[in-house]
Amino acid sequence: MQPTLLSITARIRRTPFTDRVVAAGVRSYTVYNHMLLPSSFESVEADYHHLKRHVQVWDVSCERQVEIRGPDAFRLTQLLTPRDLSHMQDDQCYYTPMVDESGGMLNDPVTLRIEEDCYWVSIADSDLLYWAKGIAAGMRLEVDVDEPDVSPLAVQGPKADDLMARVFGETVRDIRFFRYRRLAFEGREMVVARSGYSKQGGFEIYVDGGEYGEPLWDALFAAGEDLGVRAGCPNMIERIEGGLLSYGSDMTRENTPHECGLSRFCDTRAAIGCIGREALLRMLHDGPARQIRGVRIQGDAVPNCTEPWLVHADGHAVGKVTSAAWSPDLRTNVAIGMIDASHWNIGTTVEVDTPSGTRLADVSALPFVK
Amino acid sequence: MQPTLLSITARIRRTPFTDRVVAAGVRSYTVYNHMLLPSSFESVEADYHHLKRHVQVWDVSCERQVEIRGPDAFRLTQLLTPRDLSHMQDDQCYYTPMVDESGGMLNDPVTLRIEEDCYWVSIADSDLLYWAKGIAAGMRLEVDVDEPDVSPLAVQGPKADDLMARVFGETVRDIRFFRYRRLAFEGREMVVARSGYSKQGGFEIYVDGGEYGEPLWDALFAAGEDLGVRAGCPNMIERIEGGLLSYGSDMTRENTPHECGLSRFCDTRAAIGCIGREALLRMLHDGPARQIRGVRIQGDAVPNCTEPWLVHADGHAVGKVTSAAWSPDLRTNVAIGMIDASHWNIGTTVEVDTPSGTRLADVSALPFVK
Repeated sequence: MQPTLLSITARIRRTPFTDRVVAAGVRSYTVYNHMLLPSSFESVEADYHHLKRHVQVWDVSCERQVEIRGPDAFRLTQLLTPRDLSHMQDDQCYYTPMVDESGGMLNDPVTLRIEEDCYWVSIADSDLLYWAKGIAAGMRLEVDVDEPDVSPLAVQGPKADDLMARVFGETVRDIRFFRYRRLAFEGREMVVARSGYSKQGGFEIYVDGGEYGEPLWDALFAAGEDLGVRAGCPNMIERIEGGLLSYGSDMTRENTPHECGLSRFCDTRAAIGCIGREALLRMLHDGPARQIRGVRIQGDAVPNCTEPWLVHADGHAVGKVTSAAWSPDLRTNVAIGMIDASHWNIGTTVEVDTPSGTRLADVSALPFVK
Repeated sequence: MQPTLLSITARIRRTPFTDRVVAAGVRSYTVYNHMLLPSSFESVEADYHHLKRHVQVWDVSCERQVEIRGPDAFRLTQLLTPRDLSHMQDDQCYYTPMVDESGGMLNDPVTLRIEEDCYWVSIADSDLLYWAKGIAAGMRLEVDVDEPDVSPLAVQGPKADDLMARVFGETVRDIRFFRYRRLAFEGREMVVARSGYSKQGGFEIYVDGGEYGEPLWDALFAAGEDLGVRAGCPNMIERIEGGLLSYGSDMTRENTPHECGLSRFCDTRAAIGCIGREALLRMLHDGPARQIRGVRIQGDAVPNCTEPWLVHADGHAVGKVTSAAWSPDLRTNVAIGMIDASHWNIGTTVEVDTPSGTRLADVSALPFVK
């Protein structure tokens, strides 16, 4: 496929970091929550090698926050997800599938409990704000639902702890996985969580106030010069190797959390107030008929997966691949797909129709690399 | 600004027409409702001249439909918009501002009454499906809300009637503005409306079933060869000249319909069931403090407006410009902006901070060209 040009208008929002991202040599973007998200700098493969060895700063402002605040904040947030939020502590982040009344996936955000009556839902690519606001309006809940001026900046890679300690202090090393602390930058307290859309370790800084964006970016680069810090972004190859799903690609509203392999986040047997609970409970008896799997595609590098690729066996369709990339470290094509129960056992041989021909493949566990 | 590359993954959906759009030489895209929307073919200016003289076929599949079906379909659709839908007929399309409980704009779709218990809401760039589903779930309405496999294809330009008559029959000439008829293509009845995102006249075909996309595209091009038919797309210059607003650029959830100049679509004095009615009623007494206007920017061609440009006068901020383009026919820069009441009178001189310097400008009526 030819390189494709993106027309940028005010409808595709810039971020507090866009000028810095451009100065750092961004090579391509995608659009995510109506906002610019870088997709490569040097190249996807060069970025991948760097991410696995050093440390990168990522403009993931497009992970917008849905802030739910008020006396009914817990009730509304629990209505959105089948994960039991009742024991959540004030410094916790939960990966939370969000489902509609039929149990269909609407988003797969990370939810933060900010205080007793306030949650931030850090969203994937869909207007979850509209769903939350619709429920609040329909049920006349006592709650404000809004998008604050909060733009996450991720620091990812094996040297992330060292870089962050230089800017936020040694205390960052004590933050546990999917926990956060409030740490000051230039006198402003910000939520700093150990989380991020890679398997290389690191943090997400919820930059509270766009005016802190460039000073923080500059501070991280000044502090990290000898660590080889670079601008980066969620990396297609690394996230497939790590089995990190992409909402809109690997799962949509057509899929249940069980199909997405997210059953461990569904506490539907508990008496939680989730809107999709009854639908999900009904599914428990039979279990899903298809589920997300890794797929190892044989042969040389396949092109990008720009639309689902048919997976078949013995002349019958048995699934589809929705993300794929050549893994330089694993020396094979790694992919994520939705595979029917008949063929989802690890090691099953299937065929995948790629733009570069039909390829032999085998069903694999996720992640490919721990 | 350098040309920017777009990375395409399965998350950015292709349409039933994408292969034809590529074959027709699409030069750039934008992303709209998680879907590819072409933004230029030969060039924005060449496309503009052609659109005003001939006829174009536009892949506007990204105008996704929110289908609201069931006994409560009227009730839910009316909950979404302050426009009174009670007298809507089965062949009518209404331009419908959609607002939240505070009267903030959530979308500005065209709503079609498909039958007594079924509406299609043909949306601008936000997941209005989530808002509609949220209200339905919150109020336990008896209604199904879904996105059907319907992809609008627009035929726009002064020769649109001639082209459409050749493919759908002479009856298309009798379709009135914002009315539709069900017309057959290859035995499949489709909604054909006289509407579209240009001021050059034409139709939108709601292609019902993706498998009809390429045959219909091919039929239109075969029938229109001597009319000079070309692939096109919503044209930035022409739509600004025509005063057509872009949701996400010219208006957002921060704006009320009154600020957007859409008061004539707000029947809030009637006893309609719109969720935002009370908020909008409260605003009627004072009226808006700012409103959308045309802005004529002096000097040579300004660059694209990729983020709001400050409008000021006498050293004070008095608004912002959100869309701008050089108009070859008007020999000036035309723009759309939100201007404070102090400076919104037609002819008022203001200054606009563009990337190519501060420019003198004057406030203008919309549309620039009828």
